[in-house]
Amino acid sequence: MMYTFTVFKGSKDGTIIKSTTTKPDLTGDQVYLRITASGICGTDLHVQKADMVLGHEGTGVVEEIGPQVKHLKKGDRIGFGYQHDSCGSCQSCLSGRETFCDQRVWYSEADYDQGSLASHAVWREAFLFKLPAALPDVYAAPLMCAGGTVFNALRMYDIQPTQRVGVVGVGGLGHLAIQFAAKMGCEVIVFSGTDSKKEEAMELGADEFHAVKGKKTLDIGRKLDCLVVTTSNHPDWNLYLQVMNHGSTIFPLYVSEEPLVLPSLKFLQSAIRIQGSVIAARYMHNEMLEFASHHKIHPVTETFPMTVDGITEAMKKLSEGKMRYRAVAFPEAAA
Amino acid sequence: MMYTFTVFKGSKDGTIIKSTTTKPDLTGDQVYLRITASGICGTDLHVQKADMVLGHEGTGVVEEIGPQVKHLKKGDRIGFGYQHDSCGSCQSCLSGRETFCDQRVWYSEADYDQGSLASHAVWREAFLFKLPAALPDVYAAPLMCAGGTVFNALRMYDIQPTQRVGVVGVGGLGHLAIQFAAKMGCEVIVFSGTDSKKEEAMELGADEFHAVKGKKTLDIGRKLDCLVVTTSNHPDWNLYLQVMNHGSTIFPLYVSEEPLVLPSLKFLQSAIRIQGSVIAARYMHNEMLEFASHHKIHPVTETFPMTVDGITEAMKKLSEGKMRYRAVAFPEAAA
Repeated sequence: MMYTFTVFKGSKDGTIIKSTTTKPDLTGDQVYLRITASGICGTDLHVQKADMVLGHEGTGVVEEIGPQVKHLKKGDRIGFGYQHDSCGSCQSCLSGRETFCDQRVWYSEADYDQGSLASHAVWREAFLFKLPAALPDVYAAPLMCAGGTVFNALRMYDIQPTQRVGVVGVGGLGHLAIQFAAKMGCEVIVFSGTDSKKEEAMELGADEFHAVKGKKTLDIGRKLDCLVVTTSNHPDWNLYLQVMNHGSTIFPLYVSEEPLVLPSLKFLQSAIRIQGSVIAARYMHNEMLEFASHHKIHPVTETFPMTVDGITEAMKKLSEGKMRYRAVAFPEAAA
Repeated sequence: MMYTFTVFKGSKDGTIIKSTTTKPDLTGDQVYLRITASGICGTDLHVQKADMVLGHEGTGVVEEIGPQVKHLKKGDRIGFGYQHDSCGSCQSCLSGRETFCDQRVWYSEADYDQGSLASHAVWREAFLFKLPAALPDVYAAPLMCAGGTVFNALRMYDIQPTQRVGVVGVGGLGHLAIQFAAKMGCEVIVFSGTDSKKEEAMELGADEFHAVKGKKTLDIGRKLDCLVVTTSNHPDWNLYLQVMNHGSTIFPLYVSEEPLVLPSLKFLQSAIRIQGSVIAARYMHNEMLEFASHHKIHPVTETFPMTVDGITEAMKKLSEGKMRYRAVAFPEAAA
């Protein structure tokens, strides 16, 4: 049996194109799923001009299962994200860090014929996540990349509930970082350009909010133990290093083509840690889903129809920095 | 009673000046000590043009003790290093990380009237280290800063004995990093400009040696989990990032006025940690001394008389990158 389904692709001039993909009969632990929702992420903007299917924050329902599928059955609600496969046998994979596998299969680097902006997809069961019942698709989809990314930073690198955690930028990642850090017990200090998002940030769990546009100095009282940078490009390090504790940790979570330029002396003498951090490995992604479900961590979303027009509009709004805070596209039938 | 002793200072044009310092009667836990040896470190070059006493790698013998000294007695062999005091009551101090105290008192930032290039000094007992009997002064002095600095990097940040550890640069810090990492069980891969230090590096415990001068690509087989950079300035990151594992850690241990410029994407997507690291806190400095004594980790030294001429010659050789590998100055009477 063959599977033919609708997909939405990028293209050379950035136009969103509706197309179809055909996949052969399921083998191994492959699962054929119907997509029920897709988040839209800054990373999608980076590949909008590539000839590839877009979307890597999907929720769906299992429609068919391959011969070696063990745990999923038809009708199960699942999610999928940025990573689609890994070797399964290297030291990284064996130690639960398959995101570090040298043969990791990531969105934008492989599987160009399918994504979450599509009617269906075929993925390995091993890289699908069962969704908690209390997490509807509109919340679950943005957690598949944005949620996993901020959770991974806060969980994998010894950030403690007693710490003061700064979040730079209130957007798709930032508004989730605020919620996760607050529910983990941290004091959350938010930095944004202007006061326009202050009220919402405080409602999401921020303890303090600082508008930084045009500022050359920062004084926030007690310094920070951790800084999660969720802006779309490098922040002004000379500003933020003023408020970092000795021995603190900074996560630059943005994807930038420009080099990271740090004041060397200040960084060294304060024994600061600059920690690159990617998506969550699967065990941690599952922790994240349970934590979000238990603590009612809900992405704030704007919804769009999963059509050429709907996706185009969402991508435009996202690129202009106007999304509050995460776009979720729903298939037309469901909209 | 007053204490007047000989000191060697920097000066505006970099000339070494012999002078005297007078200290009042001992109070609190102050100790008056006679200096028996002093290492000379790259940091001393940075302040050679400052009006301050030089040297922060000292060994000595206790001559007099203040009214609140608890553990030291006249005749005890001790060492002292970069940090002279801290507040003792902040969270950093209380958690054994007094190197992160906001009121830490460091060489080149305070106590300009004394250092280890001197006949005597007055320091708080709390910041003196008892020397293991098996560590003579010529070995102990360079451990007071160089040894503590590389040990701290290898111990404080979860480097494991099963890891592959790269060391960039074979000098005062690098030749000790090789020894410590090897004795901790790590595979040690050394990078140096040319092959001129290869034989010595292998004798010190290196498993592999790579001459990198002029190289644009590196292939060393299995990648590294950790990289200790002990050059005097930023290395070519584009070269070394080629051999770093996902999730690995880099310690830039040099003091540079130039910004740290990293290829942003590679750094993020490999989830690399850039970890600023300073000297060891006291409990870890004591561990370092015991470890060095037990494992016979011996600095390779060149000795100089602690005179204007001797110090001048050592500073010149160090600045030219010709020291193999650490200068130690001895008072004339002992020389």
